[in-house]
Amino acid sequence: MKSIAFTLVFSVLFGFTYAQNQDSIFIKSIYNHALTESPAHENLRTLCKDIGARITGSAEAEMAIYWGKQLLESYDFDTVYLQEITVPHWERGTQEAAWIINENGELKKVDVIALGGSVGTHGVLEGEVIGVEGIDDVEKLGEAKIKGKIVFVNKPFDQTQINTFKAYGACSNQRWSGAKAASKYGAKAVVIRSLAQSNDDHPHTGSMDYKMENKIPAAALSTNSANTLFDWLKQGKVRLKLEMDCRFYEDETSYNVIAEIFGKEDKVITFGGHLDSWDVGEGAHDDGAGVIHSIEALRILKQLNYQPNHKLRCVLFMNEENGNFGGKGYAKWCSDNKEEHICALESDRGGFQPLGYDVVGSAAQLKFVQSFKPLVKDYRLYNFEFGYGGVDIGPLKKHYPNILQLGLNPTSQRYFDFHHAETDVFENVNKRELELGCASLATMVYLMDKNL
Amino acid sequence: MKSIAFTLVFSVLFGFTYAQNQDSIFIKSIYNHALTESPAHENLRTLCKDIGARITGSAEAEMAIYWGKQLLESYDFDTVYLQEITVPHWERGTQEAAWIINENGELKKVDVIALGGSVGTHGVLEGEVIGVEGIDDVEKLGEAKIKGKIVFVNKPFDQTQINTFKAYGACSNQRWSGAKAASKYGAKAVVIRSLAQSNDDHPHTGSMDYKMENKIPAAALSTNSANTLFDWLKQGKVRLKLEMDCRFYEDETSYNVIAEIFGKEDKVITFGGHLDSWDVGEGAHDDGAGVIHSIEALRILKQLNYQPNHKLRCVLFMNEENGNFGGKGYAKWCSDNKEEHICALESDRGGFQPLGYDVVGSAAQLKFVQSFKPLVKDYRLYNFEFGYGGVDIGPLKKHYPNILQLGLNPTSQRYFDFHHAETDVFENVNKRELELGCASLATMVYLMDKNL
Repeated sequence: MKSIAFTLVFSVLFGFTYAQNQDSIFIKSIYNHALTESPAHENLRTLCKDIGARITGSAEAEMAIYWGKQLLESYDFDTVYLQEITVPHWERGTQEAAWIINENGELKKVDVIALGGSVGTHGVLEGEVIGVEGIDDVEKLGEAKIKGKIVFVNKPFDQTQINTFKAYGACSNQRWSGAKAASKYGAKAVVIRSLAQSNDDHPHTGSMDYKMENKIPAAALSTNSANTLFDWLKQGKVRLKLEMDCRFYEDETSYNVIAEIFGKEDKVITFGGHLDSWDVGEGAHDDGAGVIHSIEALRILKQLNYQPNHKLRCVLFMNEENGNFGGKGYAKWCSDNKEEHICALESDRGGFQPLGYDVVGSAAQLKFVQSFKPLVKDYRLYNFEFGYGGVDIGPLKKHYPNILQLGLNPTSQRYFDFHHAETDVFENVNKRELELGCASLATMVYLMDKNL
Repeated sequence: MKSIAFTLVFSVLFGFTYAQNQDSIFIKSIYNHALTESPAHENLRTLCKDIGARITGSAEAEMAIYWGKQLLESYDFDTVYLQEITVPHWERGTQEAAWIINENGELKKVDVIALGGSVGTHGVLEGEVIGVEGIDDVEKLGEAKIKGKIVFVNKPFDQTQINTFKAYGACSNQRWSGAKAASKYGAKAVVIRSLAQSNDDHPHTGSMDYKMENKIPAAALSTNSANTLFDWLKQGKVRLKLEMDCRFYEDETSYNVIAEIFGKEDKVITFGGHLDSWDVGEGAHDDGAGVIHSIEALRILKQLNYQPNHKLRCVLFMNEENGNFGGKGYAKWCSDNKEEHICALESDRGGFQPLGYDVVGSAAQLKFVQSFKPLVKDYRLYNFEFGYGGVDIGPLKKHYPNILQLGLNPTSQRYFDFHHAETDVFENVNKRELELGCASLATMVYLMDKNL
């Protein structure tokens, strides 16, 4: 009896150790490949330099779809196809301009960028500025103080947040809801402090809730310009002049770009990033990096002859930035097709060194993910805690409440220097950090596929 | 009995929890201060932009000592003083130049930099190049193949090493011992592939073992130039022309710069970085960042009214790069003065986001350090394993064999793009990452002081 028990324990332990060793060896081969043979960096260069910024409705977005499909087809996956969606088409038009004038008649040009979806100013709009620290103050001031003015919302990032996404989240409502709050009391326009980490001269755009009767022009100032305006307002009255030429066009047809490797089962594991970007910079970190991570995860697994248990599906989502019609369309399409989805992963926090993955799921699912920590800690993947999966894969949760979602979580200290700004260019993505992201995503897809 | 036992357990647990909470609160205050009120980034700007590269013997090294002492004095510590040492004085002279010529007479200029301490070429030196993959091959080729030639050692970084310091370590002997190995068999000169991560146009200098009879000129090529030379050698014979104007001068007097806060006991905790740098770039990551981390660690603890148990000593070491006379002199001085040293910490791996600390000590000391992991994981300090403390604090181990040593271990993926090259400038250090380094060092000094 004793010897049977011993044999059993030995076999289980040995089997477990053997599996762990096999995993270790395979993960090492993923990283070795990504760090020595991957076209990741060159592919990102093409996406950033030969195509560039690619907001939905632009010619560049169409080029990016073509590029993505061609690239995926070159890797000989089981399928590559496009998934039709309808997307908004908004254009910035001529470069924005703005300047401020104080009571002494002194003038200073400020760095300004229209928020995504904003109406234009139809010539130069001018008004007195009323500054507030957050959009709650707009409500407090009410129509008496707001009407006919230009509202300036100036909440800065909380620099004490180690997780910079929390600092972003804590003031993102000034971008999302600033126009709506100011319009309610008759403001002429709204300008916000950019949602940015550093004090610099680069304004950051982004989406907003523009569902309102009286759409007013909405723009962001660079953090340095916001600081200047704030200082001037302490001295006395300030008028702002603003010209923006942006407008909406008819909705357009666009596409998610999808590639798959078939598995033993039809259950699906989705992983992706978004192919569209804002219309400034090159969408290098946001989200060229996530697109490259996702393509590379599928390519590397195929290259290493991995035979998946499930259908591995790489999705390059369109329209994450201004509507998420790619993510919503994808989730509905999966549900309509009665597909079974067990896991989804997203990379949309830049091409920096990965430190772990945020987990969306039950306590048991978190524990399951954390059980792989010993296998990945040598690759600096330390952090697996509850968090946020991503905008693109988010809508899957509605259709698949038990789905496990993972969001790649890299070092985030530099992300909000680049996010939605002209600084988000190829040169600011480090080759090795990008490659480590590719390897980490391939690794997590592999571990989820093998063990779910 | 039961109730006594319960009370005892409760008290111990409560006491423990209370202490942990106090630590948590204090560490949070360190980070909050570092991320919102620290002059770290502006101080680094001054060191890099107003002083710049500061190799021992240079006017800039003298300026850096003056700057460091003045800055430390402005913080009103218990003592600030200089510690005299003798340092070498080597100068690069006129910018180096080198080019290669193939059998067809085609010429290509290559990016070159003299290795630290090298002799000059006294005009243009010319010779046929013999390429080797590592310095072991020099030994195999011997005098017959080497004599009269210029030896080119071309071992690249192993890109599969996640810890890039391991990749550096694995080929650092081509810089350290290349000249000696080549000179032994009568080579005219040696050129090495730069110890660098990326393929780019920036050659990287560094120290070498130059204790030999027949000192030959030694230089490093940029990785791109090394790749070109390697490709040309595959096609046929290649001659290299090299001009370097460098030379040694008389040794000079220099100084470590030291500041202290006294504690309840005289036992010493040392922490520092090195004030000197190579003579290219601005010594921003190597080791301006470490200098700033160390100054800030002491300043922040004083600012927060921390009353130390031990003598907290911040040391800005001179001459880490080419002789380590600062580190050796410091250790001897401590020993000669019969000081008792319990712990030493060093920051000399750049101003990137810290991920943990390497530990040099016993298994029990490692376990002791690891016991603080729960307190610091929210600040992304995950990794506390046996490793390397640092060059400056290294010599203390000889005099204090039981000393616990800790080396700040930041993300290392980008470090060897900058190390010892013209790219190591202020602009490549991120403000928040620098501040996180300051906070992490203040935290570790605090935890060691409180618990050792």
